[in-house]
Amino acid sequence: MTSLLIDGIGSLVTNDPALGSGPLGVVPDAALVVEDGRVTWAGPRSRVPQGAARERFDAAGRAVLPGFVDSHAHLVFAGDRAAEFAARMAGRPYSAGGIRTTVEATRAASDDTLRAGVRRLVAEALCSGTTTVECKSGYGLTVPDEARCLRVAGEHTEEVTFLGAHVVPPEYAGRPDDYVDLVCGPMLDACAPHARWIDVFCDRGAFDGDQTRAILAAGRERGLVPRVHAGQLQAGPGVAVAVELGAASADHLTHLTAADVDALASGGTVATLLPGAEFSTRSPYPDARRLLDAGATVALAADCNPGSSYTTSMPFCIALAVREMRMTPDEAVWAATMGGARALRRTDVGRLSPGARADVVLLDAPSHVHLAYRPGVPLVAAVWRAGVPAAGAEPPSR
Amino acid sequence: MTSLLIDGIGSLVTNDPALGSGPLGVVPDAALVVEDGRVTWAGPRSRVPQGAARERFDAAGRAVLPGFVDSHAHLVFAGDRAAEFAARMAGRPYSAGGIRTTVEATRAASDDTLRAGVRRLVAEALCSGTTTVECKSGYGLTVPDEARCLRVAGEHTEEVTFLGAHVVPPEYAGRPDDYVDLVCGPMLDACAPHARWIDVFCDRGAFDGDQTRAILAAGRERGLVPRVHAGQLQAGPGVAVAVELGAASADHLTHLTAADVDALASGGTVATLLPGAEFSTRSPYPDARRLLDAGATVALAADCNPGSSYTTSMPFCIALAVREMRMTPDEAVWAATMGGARALRRTDVGRLSPGARADVVLLDAPSHVHLAYRPGVPLVAAVWRAGVPAAGAEPPSR
Ligand SMILES: [Zn+2]
Ligand SMILES: [Zn+2]
Repeated sequence: MTSLLIDGIGSLVTNDPALGSGPLGVVPDAALVVEDGRVTWAGPRSRVPQGAARERFDAAGRAVLPGFVDSHAHLVFAGDRAAEFAARMAGRPYSAGGIRTTVEATRAASDDTLRAGVRRLVAEALCSGTTTVECKSGYGLTVPDEARCLRVAGEHTEEVTFLGAHVVPPEYAGRPDDYVDLVCGPMLDACAPHARWIDVFCDRGAFDGDQTRAILAAGRERGLVPRVHAGQLQAGPGVAVAVELGAASADHLTHLTAADVDALASGGTVATLLPGAEFSTRSPYPDARRLLDAGATVALAADCNPGSSYTTSMPFCIALAVREMRMTPDEAVWAATMGGARALRRTDVGRLSPGARADVVLLDAPSHVHLAYRPGVPLVAAVWRAGVPAAGAEPPSR
Repeated sequence: MTSLLIDGIGSLVTNDPALGSGPLGVVPDAALVVEDGRVTWAGPRSRVPQGAARERFDAAGRAVLPGFVDSHAHLVFAGDRAAEFAARMAGRPYSAGGIRTTVEATRAASDDTLRAGVRRLVAEALCSGTTTVECKSGYGLTVPDEARCLRVAGEHTEEVTFLGAHVVPPEYAGRPDDYVDLVCGPMLDACAPHARWIDVFCDRGAFDGDQTRAILAAGRERGLVPRVHAGQLQAGPGVAVAVELGAASADHLTHLTAADVDALASGGTVATLLPGAEFSTRSPYPDARRLLDAGATVALAADCNPGSSYTTSMPFCIALAVREMRMTPDEAVWAATMGGARALRRTDVGRLSPGARADVVLLDAPSHVHLAYRPGVPLVAAVWRAGVPAAGAEPPSR
């Protein structure tokens, strides 16, 4: 049995209020015991239980928190859209239409190209502390291309989402309902075996409420659990449909009605905010305070994609959440860890209490507040995933 | 003679319009030759001159640009102000008064503590691509403490700035002119030998126009060159005094009058913008477009300090400059390299053309636009300073 003691932790975020102070369950001067990839003990270092001979890692007073759970990412694609980004920053607004550029490049790419791209981004995210990442299809938009995108995603994560309804592809221009029929029928037949989730981009220029309902319902019949892109470009039916169909999460929420806030606060659907998208499209930020104050469960995710948010950095999203959405550093760190776990209906990640998978982030800082206080600084000094030091994210030698 | 060929560069920013396209002098499919720490050749790889046996580094299609020149930093201090940051994010505004917290901690710290702090931040900045960093005193505010802060700064950079006039220390409360006399007399006597620059925080709660003029003039008499903190908290006399006294740079410029813009556009004083400070104090951003469109020379700097901008990341500042100040990615990259060099009156850094110091940044990206397009992602894959691979910033093994 492999056994690891992380000792000398200056400040430990457990996300278990029974173990420490506040909703984050913060334990100062702490230690963490890991056995066979799971946390078996977390608490004050003065009370570490005696145990078998353990490998010992000295955190030297630095902060430790659960690995980030990024519940919204589009990592299977080819090409980039740097020129579109630069044009947008010079004044052109973001539209869903740009997705088609990436669809064309993705269809033309080999499996190995797609695979290398996902591998690179998952590794990059891991170096910034992300130990669980969801991954959507949505740049194939044909039966074989969607299925292969899901297969490639599944090689890198267990949280695979079928997003055939990302946008209506050019060959279905003017006949979106035919495309919806394709998604609900043959595409879903080919894709459902490779996915856990089904998602729809319910917004202006993409899919309306009825189409979204039909697609999510068809997915549910195949055993997939719904999640929804809602309210990125304008307020619409996305949140209502998400809550109605028991979606795990409604994502973006840049534009919200009072009814949307009520539905999210009272239903079981997590409100997932993606401030990287607002940053890179120069849009107004979602009203996180309104959601939090109403009692909604809020998650933060990076929405990594080449069009509107080409970042894998959860620390960056935390800093934005604090600066731009007036979340407290504690709320933002919770949303990026436990919030993401809730959005993926996972109980084994997003926390560092007994039984959790030992996904551990060590910061080059004395507390998790520094993730917001030191924006842009790569503070992640080391990452363990299921108790194993993550390649490329070991402690630096200095 | 040591000799290095960096080959296979996908896109090279030289900042020399004679070598490539646009103000950045961009050369696609490029190579760079370094000899004895200097650039000796830069251009299309098809035309690399034959030379002595060289060490060869393959950039594998990635982008290369000059090391960042961060012309505004406060690195000599002890303690941090994470709690003040969290309180501010919950609604308390930033005031210059918080500086006194750091003054107290700095005075109480040993030389070795201060030295370790500067070393850590300079190393951190280097990992994010900063190869030249200015460093100010200003948290000592007694004759011996200011002098030792400058000595410590001088161990890590050649760009040392005396900022005894950061804020009036508590023991001079109510008699600021006595403190100005101290700064202009005994403090300057002790400090001038250890500095190249003299700086004053000319703003509400700090020093007024007459005090600023007197201090800068006294510094000039001792051979120091002026630079000024101007217009962070409100419009004031800072810019006018800076231009009048031939300051190398006026910094912050969050609040500007039309006369300020004219003075900066027509004078020799660089306009240095510090968007990290606006990010971390939740302030409105400076009007970079107005300055650029009027013809001012604009620099970007990180303003690393524990109170209002605890970041060393120039890539983060570039992303903010594009998102929040409507600079183009090209303008922001120029401002973070050549702009910084201008603000420090350096001709040997901020460019990668023959004669320049070989301060080279390799990005894990095909172009410098990705510094804004991929916010928060640690894109810096390798750094050379004066032709030598920088410790802690070598190419990753993946
Ligand atoms: Zn998305
Ligand atoms: Zn400053």
